[in-house]
Amino acid sequence: MRFMNPVDPSTKIKVAIIGASGYSGEELVKLLLLHPHVQLTVLTSRQYNGRSLGEIFPRFASLPGACDLRFEAPDTPSILQRAEVAFLALPHGVAAEFAEPLVAGGCQVIDLSADFRIRDSKVYREFYGSEHPAPQLLSQAVYGLPEWRREAIRSAQLIASPGCYPTSILLPTLPLIGDGLIQPATLVANSLSGVSGAGRKADIPFLFVECNESVRSYGVTFHRHLSEIEQEISLAAQAPTVIQFTPHLIPVNRGILTTMSVAPSKQAEGPVGIDQIEACLCQAYEGEPFVRLLGPEALPDTKHVVGTNHIEIAWRMDPRTGRLMLMSAEDNLLKGAGGQAIQSMNILRGLPETAGLLL
Amino acid sequence: MRFMNPVDPSTKIKVAIIGASGYSGEELVKLLLLHPHVQLTVLTSRQYNGRSLGEIFPRFASLPGACDLRFEAPDTPSILQRAEVAFLALPHGVAAEFAEPLVAGGCQVIDLSADFRIRDSKVYREFYGSEHPAPQLLSQAVYGLPEWRREAIRSAQLIASPGCYPTSILLPTLPLIGDGLIQPATLVANSLSGVSGAGRKADIPFLFVECNESVRSYGVTFHRHLSEIEQEISLAAQAPTVIQFTPHLIPVNRGILTTMSVAPSKQAEGPVGIDQIEACLCQAYEGEPFVRLLGPEALPDTKHVVGTNHIEIAWRMDPRTGRLMLMSAEDNLLKGAGGQAIQSMNILRGLPETAGLLL
Amino acid sequence: MRFMNPVDPSTKIKVAIIGASGYSGEELVKLLLLHPHVQLTVLTSRQYNGRSLGEIFPRFASLPGACDLRFEAPDTPSILQRAEVAFLALPHGVAAEFAEPLVAGGCQVIDLSADFRIRDSKVYREFYGSEHPAPQLLSQAVYGLPEWRREAIRSAQLIASPGCYPTSILLPTLPLIGDGLIQPATLVANSLSGVSGAGRKADIPFLFVECNESVRSYGVTFHRHLSEIEQEISLAAQAPTVIQFTPHLIPVNRGILTTMSVAPSKQAEGPVGIDQIEACLCQAYEGEPFVRLLGPEALPDTKHVVGTNHIEIAWRMDPRTGRLMLMSAEDNLLKGAGGQAIQSMNILRGLPETAGLLL
Amino acid sequence: MRFMNPVDPSTKIKVAIIGASGYSGEELVKLLLLHPHVQLTVLTSRQYNGRSLGEIFPRFASLPGACDLRFEAPDTPSILQRAEVAFLALPHGVAAEFAEPLVAGGCQVIDLSADFRIRDSKVYREFYGSEHPAPQLLSQAVYGLPEWRREAIRSAQLIASPGCYPTSILLPTLPLIGDGLIQPATLVANSLSGVSGAGRKADIPFLFVECNESVRSYGVTFHRHLSEIEQEISLAAQAPTVIQFTPHLIPVNRGILTTMSVAPSKQAEGPVGIDQIEACLCQAYEGEPFVRLLGPEALPDTKHVVGTNHIEIAWRMDPRTGRLMLMSAEDNLLKGAGGQAIQSMNILRGLPETAGLLL
Repeated sequence: MRFMNPVDPSTKIKVAIIGASGYSGEELVKLLLLHPHVQLTVLTSRQYNGRSLGEIFPRFASLPGACDLRFEAPDTPSILQRAEVAFLALPHGVAAEFAEPLVAGGCQVIDLSADFRIRDSKVYREFYGSEHPAPQLLSQAVYGLPEWRREAIRSAQLIASPGCYPTSILLPTLPLIGDGLIQPATLVANSLSGVSGAGRKADIPFLFVECNESVRSYGVTFHRHLSEIEQEISLAAQAPTVIQFTPHLIPVNRGILTTMSVAPSKQAEGPVGIDQIEACLCQAYEGEPFVRLLGPEALPDTKHVVGTNHIEIAWRMDPRTGRLMLMSAEDNLLKGAGGQAIQSMNILRGLPETAGLLL
Repeated sequence: MRFMNPVDPSTKIKVAIIGASGYSGEELVKLLLLHPHVQLTVLTSRQYNGRSLGEIFPRFASLPGACDLRFEAPDTPSILQRAEVAFLALPHGVAAEFAEPLVAGGCQVIDLSADFRIRDSKVYREFYGSEHPAPQLLSQAVYGLPEWRREAIRSAQLIASPGCYPTSILLPTLPLIGDGLIQPATLVANSLSGVSGAGRKADIPFLFVECNESVRSYGVTFHRHLSEIEQEISLAAQAPTVIQFTPHLIPVNRGILTTMSVAPSKQAEGPVGIDQIEACLCQAYEGEPFVRLLGPEALPDTKHVVGTNHIEIAWRMDPRTGRLMLMSAEDNLLKGAGGQAIQSMNILRGLPETAGLLL
Repeated sequence: MRFMNPVDPSTKIKVAIIGASGYSGEELVKLLLLHPHVQLTVLTSRQYNGRSLGEIFPRFASLPGACDLRFEAPDTPSILQRAEVAFLALPHGVAAEFAEPLVAGGCQVIDLSADFRIRDSKVYREFYGSEHPAPQLLSQAVYGLPEWRREAIRSAQLIASPGCYPTSILLPTLPLIGDGLIQPATLVANSLSGVSGAGRKADIPFLFVECNESVRSYGVTFHRHLSEIEQEISLAAQAPTVIQFTPHLIPVNRGILTTMSVAPSKQAEGPVGIDQIEACLCQAYEGEPFVRLLGPEALPDTKHVVGTNHIEIAWRMDPRTGRLMLMSAEDNLLKGAGGQAIQSMNILRGLPETAGLLL
Repeated sequence: MRFMNPVDPSTKIKVAIIGASGYSGEELVKLLLLHPHVQLTVLTSRQYNGRSLGEIFPRFASLPGACDLRFEAPDTPSILQRAEVAFLALPHGVAAEFAEPLVAGGCQVIDLSADFRIRDSKVYREFYGSEHPAPQLLSQAVYGLPEWRREAIRSAQLIASPGCYPTSILLPTLPLIGDGLIQPATLVANSLSGVSGAGRKADIPFLFVECNESVRSYGVTFHRHLSEIEQEISLAAQAPTVIQFTPHLIPVNRGILTTMSVAPSKQAEGPVGIDQIEACLCQAYEGEPFVRLLGPEALPDTKHVVGTNHIEIAWRMDPRTGRLMLMSAEDNLLKGAGGQAIQSMNILRGLPETAGLLL
């Protein structure tokens, strides 16, 4: 092999991807094949059962370790034998069914679905429309936003990796809410997402001709991700909080841009100023490898983060309205899905947090 | 000629386009060539001076009346001799210089720039950064939003056609503000615009590679269009009002989608409900040929309006936040520029309002 | 109604569109609603049976005559009662089944599918993989390429409107082949098509994410359109001829660009020169309203024809290889489908050929 | 630092990028920052002189080694002191002026421009329109197509990295020409390129609105890359050969798809068959890390290679025309520019050939 790999192969972590045929699964395959501390041992997909990795994803065919990989039908005992860590890239509802026996069998599970993000099974039912399939696991699941739950992730066995929209909204706002600098109930968030967020499914509204030269909002006044956004915001605010969130579909493959307007808190000496906002964000994210705080000249642009695990964050005080603007950009498939999940795995396994993520 | 044209040619209105080389100018050329009551007599462009229309815009070469048209350098006396109506598709500042002698010479002028949209020359200076070049004309200019100024347009000699973002924000909100149903100072507007909004100018940020697979906000907390948006909102509210407005650049050629969140007014019997909103909008726009109010199942999509002079409008009450969502979609070059300008001309000249606009 | 319509409504042609839910059908709906001599009376779609036109295609909701139209399930007797002309925008195989009773009932039928393009039912079976459903009609069908079959179209009852790729290849080559100026068996044609050519069907390869930022060939060495291309080329060459044709899928909604390389014929005085090529094309298409021959400075670009019924054609002699390059651009849904079909209807019904097509 | 780097920093190769502000330069910056055996020491750009890397390319700001890098004006003595290898990402003509003193000073130079690709300075003048600025260096330059010049690259001091179109045409054809299996003079090549091929320059035809929803050919019958394509084909064929090559501009950021038709050679036992073609290509590229030969089911797609240094190649015999179809896909900025240049550097410096290129 022409590629020099410095990690002792015997120490590599054996990893399974359950549900590897969607866009998030595909991204996990790529990242984990290139991860210096990982050996990808199991790839499941009912749809592609028996077919080689290179046949389904030609672009990975030449990566080290790819030639022997085949998709297989998911079989829990076999996965438990061959993997220490399992990533679940499955629809909500289905993920929980797989998580249960894997967790019981001692596997560390990182779930990219929504199944373990919501602490309260009643909220799950309200937003996802069915009973939670494994409510007994909810208490042990960790909401895997690394910048805010690093310690809990280190000792978790079940990690619920956050949704793409929530990541883009929570990272800019949580420190400001925690410090009491903004009034979270006044938050108006508009997010613009690339079409990969809709998944790889054959559906007329996501055909090229239906999306290209089209811009539209959807899920107006109700989107499932609101449940986890408001859960985390309420925790930070120490009070139940609802926000205004509107997602939009934009003709790009990848990327989420979020623009937020929120009222700063009023303090004895007057409303919170931009310097306090900046100081809070700088302190919160100092040294964070994947959070890029932009200065006063720059604004987030998805093209600066797509293909990376970074989130860009910017802030402006509007002198005319007195409201604070917060903006972020991330790759919905990386910081918003597979990249963040691997960041959690790195923490969980005591690896350098950026291992395999410096794209 | 194979095309049957029912209008007596001698009664056609002689029309000039001043500055016909940009995207708005190009759109005017197409619309006016196809307009049954118009004879396009003058096309000016310093850049293309002397070249034929078909050479610069091959797609119009075969339209009736196109073969004899040539771009010329602008010359006021000659324009006055050959045109009754002049459309100005020029940068702000430049437009006013042309408007003055044309108005003085008796020509009816429809200006697509910002020069005559702002009633107060101090506001113009604040937002456009220079002294107004023809302040004496401001009082006679009519802000040409046909659905709201139809009567004034009928007798105007100088029409300031509204900007693209303002049209998308004002049409959904003005009736509600006028009826006191919403609190305009709580308005948060996010607009997503296609790249043609930036004009046909050679500028790195608008190259294909810089815009494709990119989504970004710009002009955060300050955009020139705010001046006319707030002027009109303040007039409707009968009180000075500022709003939160954030434009975004989206990789489509044409189209603006606007998403707004606003607090409904509080009335004695409780907050304004969605039925009152709907009734107000339906009454305001009943019979309007270019306003399409969407029912409870549909949301605006730019692909449903691009290439037409229509604006789509939808509304939703958010039961969780208690705020009203207003959404609109339009073609920035038609209802947001050239189409609306021609709609004004139709009114001004007593023609059917949809003449030449049923694309 | 605000729109002035000069045609006596009682003289309007009653027209049906059978299969109005795909991209070609949608285009026909728009064109026929705006056509000054047409009254659209029947729209069929099993999928949308009972729903209003405006609900399915919001952008047409405001066109004159649109408000009363509903999709219905196809019923031949009812169609025969209400329509003089029927456009079939159906899959091949299905179209022929509808054509038969409509033709028998006296309706003039313009079929946009491939069912009546191929004169020889054996060739149909070879390329379309099944027996021809109505071979007895083949002899009376006219291949509706207006520039080449205008006289036959005038008296046809069944018109087979040509395919999108064939139109882009045949219009540049037929005059040259007919005059013996090129050697058709040396023709290498590469066509690049927008994604609407694949139709509005839910299929993974045509999802936005699969097409955007992707360029690919398909159907290499075999495409169904070859059957009609070679039929027409062989007729013009008066000898059976096969050609090399490779279609490609390009991330645009609409448009076909075709680039061809072919050996000029050898004549006593040497190989055919570019002047002869130009003279032949100019003579062939002089006065043709929808063929735009480009001069030596310009090359075809789909953006100059999309939204119109025009085809652009250019030619260059390569002094290094001695081969002739022929290039064309058209809108696959207009000159390549619905626009051309209406052009045929105009001829058939004695209307101005450009009626309803000057977009 | 959180990133584990196994290479002894003192053994890293010191590398300069001269002209780092264009698309190829930007790609080199990214690849070389991530290259395990490279220390990027010099970045020049007149335009960005004095500005930090992170300011100009925010997405690289977090890569290891990026924080200290600043663009500087090019200064040969300083470059010679600080770099062992220099990549030139400059316009043709300019590159040769920089190459001369760097080569004289002992630096290994890898030039991404066309300046040293053409062996014959007369051909350079014919295709590039000016005298070659450093003809004395032509004889020592190696045309850096690694799969065909690996040995020469090992000992080169000046490497001319091939153009994007030439790479996509030469890799599929050179083995077949060398083995006499095809008739190169019958080659008709059509290439479709993403817009980044035009470079990051402010030019109207490359604006988003001018390229999006547009497909066009350009440079018909004459493109500068023909000079190197024909030079290499003629060398392989051992006879002067001209070919038909037509480039097209396609609305994607990156990627080139090439489709070729060529007559197979005639041999005593009949024309060359597809098995011989396949055997020849398999033998030529067995073990090549960046050439992916596709089987009979797959066709190249730029989305499978964009972001990688791979080229995909497929072949089909057309039973109807008797001609061979060859197809390839590559990333114009990687295998067609910066990736291939680094592949050459790896060979030149005795590194694993895939080092830093397994994206």
